[in-house]
Amino acid sequence: MSEPGVKHAPRRVINIGSASIGGESLLVMAGPCTVEDEEMLIATALAVRQAGALVLRGGAFKPRTSPSSYQGMGRPALEMLQRAAKLAGMSVVTEVLDTREVETVAENADIIQVGSRNMHNTALLKEVGRTGRPVLLKRGMSSTLAEWLAAAEYIFATGNDDIILCERGIRTFETATRNTLDLSAVSLLREITGLPVIVDPSHSTGKRSLVAPMSRAAVAAGADGLIIEVHPQPEIALCDGPQSLRPEEFAILMGQVQRVRETIKSF
Amino acid sequence: MSEPGVKHAPRRVINIGSASIGGESLLVMAGPCTVEDEEMLIATALAVRQAGALVLRGGAFKPRTSPSSYQGMGRPALEMLQRAAKLAGMSVVTEVLDTREVETVAENADIIQVGSRNMHNTALLKEVGRTGRPVLLKRGMSSTLAEWLAAAEYIFATGNDDIILCERGIRTFETATRNTLDLSAVSLLREITGLPVIVDPSHSTGKRSLVAPMSRAAVAAGADGLIIEVHPQPEIALCDGPQSLRPEEFAILMGQVQRVRETIKSF
Amino acid sequence: MSEPGVKHAPRRVINIGSASIGGESLLVMAGPCTVEDEEMLIATALAVRQAGALVLRGGAFKPRTSPSSYQGMGRPALEMLQRAAKLAGMSVVTEVLDTREVETVAENADIIQVGSRNMHNTALLKEVGRTGRPVLLKRGMSSTLAEWLAAAEYIFATGNDDIILCERGIRTFETATRNTLDLSAVSLLREITGLPVIVDPSHSTGKRSLVAPMSRAAVAAGADGLIIEVHPQPEIALCDGPQSLRPEEFAILMGQVQRVRETIKSF
Amino acid sequence: MSEPGVKHAPRRVINIGSASIGGESLLVMAGPCTVEDEEMLIATALAVRQAGALVLRGGAFKPRTSPSSYQGMGRPALEMLQRAAKLAGMSVVTEVLDTREVETVAENADIIQVGSRNMHNTALLKEVGRTGRPVLLKRGMSSTLAEWLAAAEYIFATGNDDIILCERGIRTFETATRNTLDLSAVSLLREITGLPVIVDPSHSTGKRSLVAPMSRAAVAAGADGLIIEVHPQPEIALCDGPQSLRPEEFAILMGQVQRVRETIKSF
Repeated sequence: MSEPGVKHAPRRVINIGSASIGGESLLVMAGPCTVEDEEMLIATALAVRQAGALVLRGGAFKPRTSPSSYQGMGRPALEMLQRAAKLAGMSVVTEVLDTREVETVAENADIIQVGSRNMHNTALLKEVGRTGRPVLLKRGMSSTLAEWLAAAEYIFATGNDDIILCERGIRTFETATRNTLDLSAVSLLREITGLPVIVDPSHSTGKRSLVAPMSRAAVAAGADGLIIEVHPQPEIALCDGPQSLRPEEFAILMGQVQRVRETIKSF
Repeated sequence: MSEPGVKHAPRRVINIGSASIGGESLLVMAGPCTVEDEEMLIATALAVRQAGALVLRGGAFKPRTSPSSYQGMGRPALEMLQRAAKLAGMSVVTEVLDTREVETVAENADIIQVGSRNMHNTALLKEVGRTGRPVLLKRGMSSTLAEWLAAAEYIFATGNDDIILCERGIRTFETATRNTLDLSAVSLLREITGLPVIVDPSHSTGKRSLVAPMSRAAVAAGADGLIIEVHPQPEIALCDGPQSLRPEEFAILMGQVQRVRETIKSF
Repeated sequence: MSEPGVKHAPRRVINIGSASIGGESLLVMAGPCTVEDEEMLIATALAVRQAGALVLRGGAFKPRTSPSSYQGMGRPALEMLQRAAKLAGMSVVTEVLDTREVETVAENADIIQVGSRNMHNTALLKEVGRTGRPVLLKRGMSSTLAEWLAAAEYIFATGNDDIILCERGIRTFETATRNTLDLSAVSLLREITGLPVIVDPSHSTGKRSLVAPMSRAAVAAGADGLIIEVHPQPEIALCDGPQSLRPEEFAILMGQVQRVRETIKSF
Repeated sequence: MSEPGVKHAPRRVINIGSASIGGESLLVMAGPCTVEDEEMLIATALAVRQAGALVLRGGAFKPRTSPSSYQGMGRPALEMLQRAAKLAGMSVVTEVLDTREVETVAENADIIQVGSRNMHNTALLKEVGRTGRPVLLKRGMSSTLAEWLAAAEYIFATGNDDIILCERGIRTFETATRNTLDLSAVSLLREITGLPVIVDPSHSTGKRSLVAPMSRAAVAAGADGLIIEVHPQPEIALCDGPQSLRPEEFAILMGQVQRVRETIKSF
């Protein structure tokens, strides 16, 4: 999967539990937008694990635009995530919003997520870096590649170089999709940095029907992984229902992206 | 290649010479940014035809930002395109800029291109529609999907429904690429319209190294075709050298996109 | 009105009938979005003339996003504009969309407008330049200042340097206003070019209540003129009713902008 | 200064030391980008106070894109700001970046600033709200008005309604200015909210020569105040030199904006 005449940066492989990212295999993270209820969470974890996802995603602290939107269950959700992941044989990725919660999140998560709204929150970047945990750094919604990599520098500067970059769509004038997924960024980042790059087709598009084609396109563009919202009953989800896949849709998608990955591996 | 639960619009297949677009096969258009010299054009046509491209692209009239940039060779280029295409067994796509040139271009081209800068040029849309020729309608660089489809309506309104939509990147704040390629648009257009949708990975990225990965991603997202800049010696090209593929790079790319297409066909 | 330490380009003053733009006085152009009916047009012309506008605006050919929107009355509107302007003692500015109509428009207008959707229409720019008439060149809705000035170069290259630049808002992610009015551009253009710069507060904001404050701000930023939509009964206007001022609102606005102009003249 | 037919929200006046904002007078905040040295700070404070600024701005904690840029002096700068402001008879506004520093900043500042990069940092918004101090909430660089007001809701929700909104330019495709100042937002916010709205012409434009015309335009658009970077020697400033005014330039500007304010007061 090399372009003629392009010298890519040496790849950095990061271990996540017994899995890894940045190497031969695609790493898929899946789960609900937010942790709502332990039973639902366990069922989702078992389903996505069986389909091939190795990391469970789920929000404990939610960065919502409005204070009247659901803000997440907080710390109890962290423990539920850990229990569900353990049962299913998965790792956990979850977001932290406040420097004062970083330690607690680090104790309960295998990957700490810094979300799009906090990409420029330098105090948080430093604190998260210091935990030594792998960090999933989402692109700010109006951040250039240069600014995104500068944000990663705040984490590097703490001595932590386990950074996974996540393209999640940028803000443009187009309103047909929630954001505009920038897949060129994925390929370009692979030229200029060795860090693993994953794609979030759920938040970027905001539409269930676009999650599968954008996942396939992301893998064809060279992404090292995907992070996908899955909910057993999207129609009653507390957040992001319109873009969440049902477990059976996710299983079909996993088969597709694995086959695209196999195809491009030989290039 | 259908998403679970998504009802796509019925596909419209458009015949282009002995080829077609919108059906089972990927249609690839390739050639130089601008027609510079007949010998070079013929060599390029033969090379891209051998690699599998069935339509020859090449600019006779160039819509340049500055009047001091090369404006194209004009009418003589149209005849050169026709001769080169005939020799190579291809069809011709070329852009028209002026209502007064539409007739001449229609006589010499199998597909008439309306470029990004003229997507809102309603006088031109109507005139091009009236020729009855298939039209390649590029997305305006800051056009929403709704506005793009409204521009297509100007062509439909003349009774011509042979319209090929071409995603070529939109203008955003990001400067690392020339434009931001919006592949979600490709998948979304396939839900809401039956028109063939192709992708221009050359103008959208402005970087040779991104043409292959974005071509693969476009095909994985469901594109019906591609339009790619190929030049035998990009370093001396009169325009768009930095994003033009050499014929041998194009041949590798063609193999890759055909294999991605095969892979997703079974989904 | 000079900034300490800033060397502005020498101002170019353009004569428009017995008035002028680019010099001491503010030049205001006003009238309906589109010519609908001669009686209404004359009433509007007399009213805006009395309030101080010296140029009558009105669309004969309308560049509408959709072919099912009203496209303008065409050539008969040009004659109505001329008659109304003559009656009121004004000059005429109107838009041309097609190279084949340039001559007719030039015969009937004192200023030929190239609209935002056609800023990149190089064939039209050249043809309009050749008439020798003053040209009102609107900024493309996603055009940088550099691209806008490059479009002006197409007109200069024909030997015509009577160009008035019109800032009319750019396309951004913000949806609270129709476009985002870029008043910094007005001041910056006055540093780097001597051409007169005017502002269109009607199209840029799309909201009647913002027309007056943005007109005042434009004048405070140094604009040489304004172009404003005025309609005797905005609620029944064929287009742009929500942003059209009633004649009595326009008269109040004229008083305000003249006073702001007086104030900043002494700086 | 009311538009015909527009019902504005009732104005909220906020007291800042012996001054106020949102009422009859314009409130101007001025000072260096970052606190560099006490002597320079005092000289700047005395100069801007004499010119009419009543609030001293200066960064103790700087949110820089790159970790290798100057990050600010931290807590010692807070005390220097307080001493300089006291000497000059001014209030202090300064930015906080970390929930753990909010208390310290609140003890040393009259207005706590939440910067553009942290507008979506909900943890910080809540903590800042709880101090009861007036909050200067800058617009996120790619935030819609609706999202900006939703961020203000996080502060309201703590029972603190002393919120000053600050327009500081949005991110667009235009690169001629650092950001695109959105003055329509100022007028529109005055219709839909009673909160005071100020404008930052320094960060939005990034160019010294544009600070004065954009300040005049902001006041003409109805802004309740301005926040302006002033440095005694911009050529050696640790940050934002190219957009900082010299004290004598600032004094001229103050005279101009006061006269524009007087002019529009009568409208």
